[in-house]
Amino acid sequence: MDKRESLTLAQRRVFLDAAKEFTTAVRTELRSCSVSGWSVETKKDGSWVTSVDRRIEVLLLELIRKRFPDHGFIGEETGALNNNAEFQWLVDPIDGTEEYVRGMAHYGTILALHYQGKPVVGVIDHPALEISCTAAFGLGVFCNGQQLRLQQRPKAQMEREALIVVPARDDFLRHTDKSVVFNRITAAYPNHRIFRTCYGHTCAALGHVDAAIEYNVRAWDLAATRLLIEEAGGRYEQVREINVPTIGPLYGAVFGEAVLVERLMALLRVDT
Amino acid sequence: MDKRESLTLAQRRVFLDAAKEFTTAVRTELRSCSVSGWSVETKKDGSWVTSVDRRIEVLLLELIRKRFPDHGFIGEETGALNNNAEFQWLVDPIDGTEEYVRGMAHYGTILALHYQGKPVVGVIDHPALEISCTAAFGLGVFCNGQQLRLQQRPKAQMEREALIVVPARDDFLRHTDKSVVFNRITAAYPNHRIFRTCYGHTCAALGHVDAAIEYNVRAWDLAATRLLIEEAGGRYEQVREINVPTIGPLYGAVFGEAVLVERLMALLRVDT
Repeated sequence: MDKRESLTLAQRRVFLDAAKEFTTAVRTELRSCSVSGWSVETKKDGSWVTSVDRRIEVLLLELIRKRFPDHGFIGEETGALNNNAEFQWLVDPIDGTEEYVRGMAHYGTILALHYQGKPVVGVIDHPALEISCTAAFGLGVFCNGQQLRLQQRPKAQMEREALIVVPARDDFLRHTDKSVVFNRITAAYPNHRIFRTCYGHTCAALGHVDAAIEYNVRAWDLAATRLLIEEAGGRYEQVREINVPTIGPLYGAVFGEAVLVERLMALLRVDT
Repeated sequence: MDKRESLTLAQRRVFLDAAKEFTTAVRTELRSCSVSGWSVETKKDGSWVTSVDRRIEVLLLELIRKRFPDHGFIGEETGALNNNAEFQWLVDPIDGTEEYVRGMAHYGTILALHYQGKPVVGVIDHPALEISCTAAFGLGVFCNGQQLRLQQRPKAQMEREALIVVPARDDFLRHTDKSVVFNRITAAYPNHRIFRTCYGHTCAALGHVDAAIEYNVRAWDLAATRLLIEEAGGRYEQVREINVPTIGPLYGAVFGEAVLVERLMALLRVDT
């Protein structure tokens, strides 16, 4: 039995409603940050962090601790707190910091609650696009209040012409050079987009693209995605897990239309 | 002397204001289309066209003819009308039809007026993103009413980490296989995004990305871009022009930060 089944629907709703409240608070905080300005730093791994990322993460940590004092917390900036708890909140305050800093609208806040390692609630929120996707296990996935249901697309459309979101070549160069995988995927599915934020996950859940791939990302980057995709009737598969000293585990996943996910898995799994 | 100098500032303003009016009319029409629905067809070249593309182009043609009866018109769906006129309007009613049909917000309307082959007015309008960039020769470029001025970025940021928008691999496969150019560009600048619509042009004019590339596109796809970029203080270079039987001429261009455009030109021009 899926351990999540032991949570009542009412319990799941409580968690979902809490996650939505937290997201609303994040949007408010982001609006005030856009007025007051922010500072940018480059982290050890070369990625960017802003004072806004930190502020949002602290805000979420405080809200979660106050509401669910016995739950654990894993955040991009904070690390792991209370990591033996059965319930763990995973947070990426601004996924797509470069987009945020440069003024593009594709960044998003990722928030998820996992129970015994499995997602119970997932939220991807795009404040600038005014798109919010929320899901709870067994309760469906909703985008701005409307339930999402991936429609089966004709198999023929899952061929070469399929529209997929892929990572940038850079993502295949982390730790070891896997750029041959980038070449293989982009050659097999030449009609691709590259967003480099969780906007691609949102597009996959909405059916705006046929599938999306992530490669060498952190746990919080994917924390909400499986639930969003599966509750929409799509397929989500983890295809990679490596442990990089000083950085930690990096993951790869492919998700969206079941038929296409199967085909992409074959291309992603061939080791090189 | 630049022939466009022979047009008075007052004349250019008249054309600019007309282009803005036409764009407003397009937005209104698009709203009514989103209510009434649309049909989709696949064209001979494999690209999509919707009843909305046709409706918007007919609307623009009518508005232009009524206002400037002696001007020429070149549209994606209509072809060329009155093509000996000194003034030519170039139109792409929906650039990014696939985005429009699938529900993504990155599509845009492109509208430009050329005088003796050179751009006098350029508009890229993104109705779903509520972003409108408008430029007139010598009068600057504005985005939602705010003047754009590309800031000189530190040269170091124009290295490998630079953020660029590139075409999909598919664009390098039109007519002849130039996918080696895709490999070269994505390897030299691994922090790229792929939008496949004029949203990348907008991002380059706004400085949200450092540069953008188009490859094997039609004249109307680039019709507004040079003016938007140059009026913002950036550099625009055409790097490719080929004539494909049954399709017509296809172009390539690179635009944005001058330093980076120079480097990208070198990578694009090496013939393979």
